[in-house]
Amino acid sequence: MTNTAQYETVALDDGGDALVILDQTKLPNEVVFLRLTRTEDICRAIRTLQVRGAPAIGVAAACGLYLAAKSIDAPSRDAFFERFKAAKDALAASRPTAVNLFWALDRMERVASAHGDLPPARVKALLREEATRIMEEDAAVCRAIGEHGLGLLRDGDGILTHCNAGYLATTKYGTALAPVHIGLEKGYRFRVFVDETRPLLQGARLTAFELLSAGAETTLICDNMASQVMKNGWVQAVLVGCDRLAANGDACNKIGTSGVAILAKHYGIPFYVCLPTSTIDAEIATGDGIPIERRAPEEVTELWYEKRMAPAGVSVYNPAFDVTDHSLITGIVTERGVLYPPYGESVRRAARGEGGALK
Amino acid sequence: MTNTAQYETVALDDGGDALVILDQTKLPNEVVFLRLTRTEDICRAIRTLQVRGAPAIGVAAACGLYLAAKSIDAPSRDAFFERFKAAKDALAASRPTAVNLFWALDRMERVASAHGDLPPARVKALLREEATRIMEEDAAVCRAIGEHGLGLLRDGDGILTHCNAGYLATTKYGTALAPVHIGLEKGYRFRVFVDETRPLLQGARLTAFELLSAGAETTLICDNMASQVMKNGWVQAVLVGCDRLAANGDACNKIGTSGVAILAKHYGIPFYVCLPTSTIDAEIATGDGIPIERRAPEEVTELWYEKRMAPAGVSVYNPAFDVTDHSLITGIVTERGVLYPPYGESVRRAARGEGGALK
Repeated sequence: MTNTAQYETVALDDGGDALVILDQTKLPNEVVFLRLTRTEDICRAIRTLQVRGAPAIGVAAACGLYLAAKSIDAPSRDAFFERFKAAKDALAASRPTAVNLFWALDRMERVASAHGDLPPARVKALLREEATRIMEEDAAVCRAIGEHGLGLLRDGDGILTHCNAGYLATTKYGTALAPVHIGLEKGYRFRVFVDETRPLLQGARLTAFELLSAGAETTLICDNMASQVMKNGWVQAVLVGCDRLAANGDACNKIGTSGVAILAKHYGIPFYVCLPTSTIDAEIATGDGIPIERRAPEEVTELWYEKRMAPAGVSVYNPAFDVTDHSLITGIVTERGVLYPPYGESVRRAARGEGGALK
Repeated sequence: MTNTAQYETVALDDGGDALVILDQTKLPNEVVFLRLTRTEDICRAIRTLQVRGAPAIGVAAACGLYLAAKSIDAPSRDAFFERFKAAKDALAASRPTAVNLFWALDRMERVASAHGDLPPARVKALLREEATRIMEEDAAVCRAIGEHGLGLLRDGDGILTHCNAGYLATTKYGTALAPVHIGLEKGYRFRVFVDETRPLLQGARLTAFELLSAGAETTLICDNMASQVMKNGWVQAVLVGCDRLAANGDACNKIGTSGVAILAKHYGIPFYVCLPTSTIDAEIATGDGIPIERRAPEEVTELWYEKRMAPAGVSVYNPAFDVTDHSLITGIVTERGVLYPPYGESVRRAARGEGGALK
């Protein structure tokens, strides 16, 4: 492991014969790439979080569906499409709530359907092009988020982040970490404080690995140390990702994000949420409309399912996400630019693909 | 384990022949009492955190010094005092920075010195009385903190606490948890949210155990979930302990406390610091004068020293404490009453043992 690598999270190999993913369940202790060709293996990789992060899952599924199509040696077009559809259904079932997964598979299916009159070999080539396009678009969106976000930072800044919204969750650059990666490319020096992000430790396991391997000065902290780090004057900006943005700018993200936002406001530190505009859910008026997933108590009471650290019988509240009120958000960084308060109209315009209101 | 027990953290057995402690390194999975008589075993128990919490350590050391004196069968008074002093030095070295430890041992030594003309058997009896008095005073102080704190709460309140400032850290009742224990005795029903308190998980391991075994409705959360719990409207008061209070009311306590205070202020929830007035350090003007201990990175990067969860080479910032600014503290609950802002004069008077300014 060199100290300046940016690993490829998810990609097709050069010949287009296999999906190559960085096995995230082995991080940070081992860097293992998996070369997958069979639909069932790709489904398992998504299900077991060997590949994770909504954009990365979408890309893996698109590549998986192309590889499934490629392997079909069917006697007729109908037989081809029957097996193509079965592969799509299997991939769609691997993470049933991942919006990007369905979206990417639907894009692939539309390509196949629109060219059903072409010979299967030609359809397969078009599917490979579409999977590659999904991957390239994701990288381009993340790069644009990074460029816009970098405009908010200065060389030498201390940055605090929560969870993993870096390249390990996307094709390249990430969302919240894209400004850091683009800045490093341009010679900026940042000191990044990484919340370990209990209970699943995505910050400790993934973000710390990602930033260290990219050459950033990286300091790991427990979530409850963020206040002291800010008080010390070490943080000039907070960058976080987002799982779903309501029309009023309320941001649903990994549990703990709202607490970081409140601390940042207390200490007068700008708090930026970084996201592709595809994350905006303009149908939801406010964060109150976003359901919060509650997960298993054992994630909290057992250290990585290996040793019990809390008394038997104790109740546990384990929400996977929280909602950060829009009033706590200094700016929303998208691929189309940065949105500033008041958010209502600017968020809706960004969701419609209009960039006029953006700075 | 019954559901309504309050275990004895530290005590002399009925005959005064042994120190009996609840082994806190075995919690929450096993309830094991240790019966210790030899100075070296009591030193080891303190050093290895089998007994912890400043007041409990002081009591254990006082009992240890009494047991050491009891075992001395010396030919002369000089020989007795030589061995007594050696035992005191050994106990004092078991946790070199614990103020209560030195304070308790000094009290014991003063008793022995003041009665050097009495026969050793009589000195031993006086030492047992002094150790018992230290224990009883601690319990009485904690009970008074509990009574005063309970006056700030209502039946049915949701309470959030951080780390362990309960009876497991004292002789009885604790400090921050004393209002809860006294309330439970009187039939109050509380729902207590317990921050797990990374990195050492005192909340998950100790506070959750203590409250469950006392019959409180107990819900464990990760530290970063406190914001969501408060946002849900589930918390009516925050109760925390204190390791050192500056003259202006700035409170040094377990890392993460200041973040909880900022969240409480944001959500309009009262934030109370509970402490014996012996914790007030009137020599220190503000929290800026309190040195913050930094601890080993492995506490953060390894799950209980068993499995590495962060990449090799990552920097770690691991402060054991933080300082909560007095402006964030609704009230300071002491055995003499509750102090309210502005704190300067009232804190100094409480430290001098005057209660006139207290409500």
